[in-house]
Amino acid sequence: MPISEFELIERFFRQGCQRGNQRKDVLMGIGDDAAILRVPANNQLVVTTDTLVEGIHFLPSIDPEMLAYKSVAVNLSDLAAMGADPAWLTLALTLPRSDETWLSRFAAGLNQICEYYGIALVGGDTTRGPLTITLTALGHVPSDQSLSRSGAKPGDWIFVTGHLGDSAAGLKLLKGELQASDDHREFLVTRHLRPTPRILAGRSLRGIASACLDLSDGLAGDLEHIVTASGVGAHVEIDKLPLSKALLETLGDEEARQLAIRGGEDYELLFTVPEAQKGALMTALGEAGVSHSCIGQIRAGSGIHYYREGEPLQQAPQSFRHF
Amino acid sequence: MPISEFELIERFFRQGCQRGNQRKDVLMGIGDDAAILRVPANNQLVVTTDTLVEGIHFLPSIDPEMLAYKSVAVNLSDLAAMGADPAWLTLALTLPRSDETWLSRFAAGLNQICEYYGIALVGGDTTRGPLTITLTALGHVPSDQSLSRSGAKPGDWIFVTGHLGDSAAGLKLLKGELQASDDHREFLVTRHLRPTPRILAGRSLRGIASACLDLSDGLAGDLEHIVTASGVGAHVEIDKLPLSKALLETLGDEEARQLAIRGGEDYELLFTVPEAQKGALMTALGEAGVSHSCIGQIRAGSGIHYYREGEPLQQAPQSFRHF
Repeated sequence: MPISEFELIERFFRQGCQRGNQRKDVLMGIGDDAAILRVPANNQLVVTTDTLVEGIHFLPSIDPEMLAYKSVAVNLSDLAAMGADPAWLTLALTLPRSDETWLSRFAAGLNQICEYYGIALVGGDTTRGPLTITLTALGHVPSDQSLSRSGAKPGDWIFVTGHLGDSAAGLKLLKGELQASDDHREFLVTRHLRPTPRILAGRSLRGIASACLDLSDGLAGDLEHIVTASGVGAHVEIDKLPLSKALLETLGDEEARQLAIRGGEDYELLFTVPEAQKGALMTALGEAGVSHSCIGQIRAGSGIHYYREGEPLQQAPQSFRHF
Repeated sequence: MPISEFELIERFFRQGCQRGNQRKDVLMGIGDDAAILRVPANNQLVVTTDTLVEGIHFLPSIDPEMLAYKSVAVNLSDLAAMGADPAWLTLALTLPRSDETWLSRFAAGLNQICEYYGIALVGGDTTRGPLTITLTALGHVPSDQSLSRSGAKPGDWIFVTGHLGDSAAGLKLLKGELQASDDHREFLVTRHLRPTPRILAGRSLRGIASACLDLSDGLAGDLEHIVTASGVGAHVEIDKLPLSKALLETLGDEEARQLAIRGGEDYELLFTVPEAQKGALMTALGEAGVSHSCIGQIRAGSGIHYYREGEPLQQAPQSFRHF
């Protein structure tokens, strides 16, 4: 028996996310025409939207619980890149049919990550059609402390959190394009399915980083956004890219580094820090417990120049494109 | 030649909407990981999300300019129902291919309505897949003055703005399920394709209406939301439903009233007003220049009871369901 849009929303999403959080800044959540929310005084609102489409952003075989988790994580990652505190979420879910088993697992994944990060699902829309998930994540940041892509200056050091390339390797494993030991497979696939939004790192970088973004399209493409927006160039030392043991042992050094540069969906933060702030950075990220690596330096000029063992690379790596 | 996601966003949406509005409360618009926005002091944030799917919410033959207009109008209508001032918009656009002609027309429609209502497109995501549009509209309302569905009390009068049923008739005409004179056809089809978000009316109802929502699923279903949320019943006089001349002449009295009750997508406001506020209502809506009609009264109890020439109707009309 088909169930109505209202019953769907009610049954699967309303209770879990609202009850789990009980944020006092949600004055009206799901159930009216719009949500009413209280942004803290002296804070600015931060808003980001991402869409995930079946067959493009995830495989049809994906576990709905993991899909929900990842959809939210990707959006929280964008808020992290701005230095924001995540607070609220809206979900637009397009489904081929009202499959209650699928929905209950999807809702479980959504509720889990919402509770973990203390965010509330405050609105949404369910429609019938090809499986598509659009999430809008909302947060706030103390006025004029948000991070942007455009502040990098020559001499600033370039950093990334965590490791690069694991997610892309995990996707290759899921698609059967790569083989790995059981342990490595589990590690890499998990990095693809359950990326960690670097919220604490993003908060810690307020007042420290001169530019910041999250790595969704791959280091090559995303660093290009920073240098273009900032009107500078960059020097990247490929030897310094942080690689996991699992990636290195599965792909070998050469291919691992290529994937670290080209592979998307790491959802680590890529940021630049002036020399004078390096001490503050170590303290701040140390307290947040986030590993980070210096991979190069911002230079005057334009474009990204890759170096391997001190030698410039001939060919620049390409980034991932949706179209 | 395929164009990239970034070029797409850049070319079609960035300039028009941002330049057209230049809202000073947009501290960071399109082009970073998230938008940074300033909510006015002593205001609460209002957020709503809606998805439109090809084949479900619009016909594949629809003009992309009209589609963009309507997608935005539907979301602004939700903000209007809360009494909010619309301010910002994010767009998640899923497209089968990067069709530049389609995109330029879609962007033209989007820019047009954004400029008309003074709202800024502040973020978005373009992905490849079956045509789906998700918009998140954001606005604000002076603290504790928002309207909700749950405040209707026995004795309150039930009102609607504008006319009912025109949009549903327009859809039937587009689908070839109905015939009309050229003039009536144009009027009804326009009401379907270009609904008017009742923003001024919503603002005017602050402090006056006890409950409010916008009519998207049809009077029968939407009034049920008010009576359920408010814990009351309703008495609706079918003779008092406001019908356009075009609808009456195209369908005849009986069918026109059925469509006014069951037909969706009118995007008029349905609201309740205590007897003591009726004078204030006339003044407020008169100043906003919005026609409105009293169609019944809230009663103690539950459910909606329809009356025709003083006699109760035997069968309650059904509302539109997506699933």
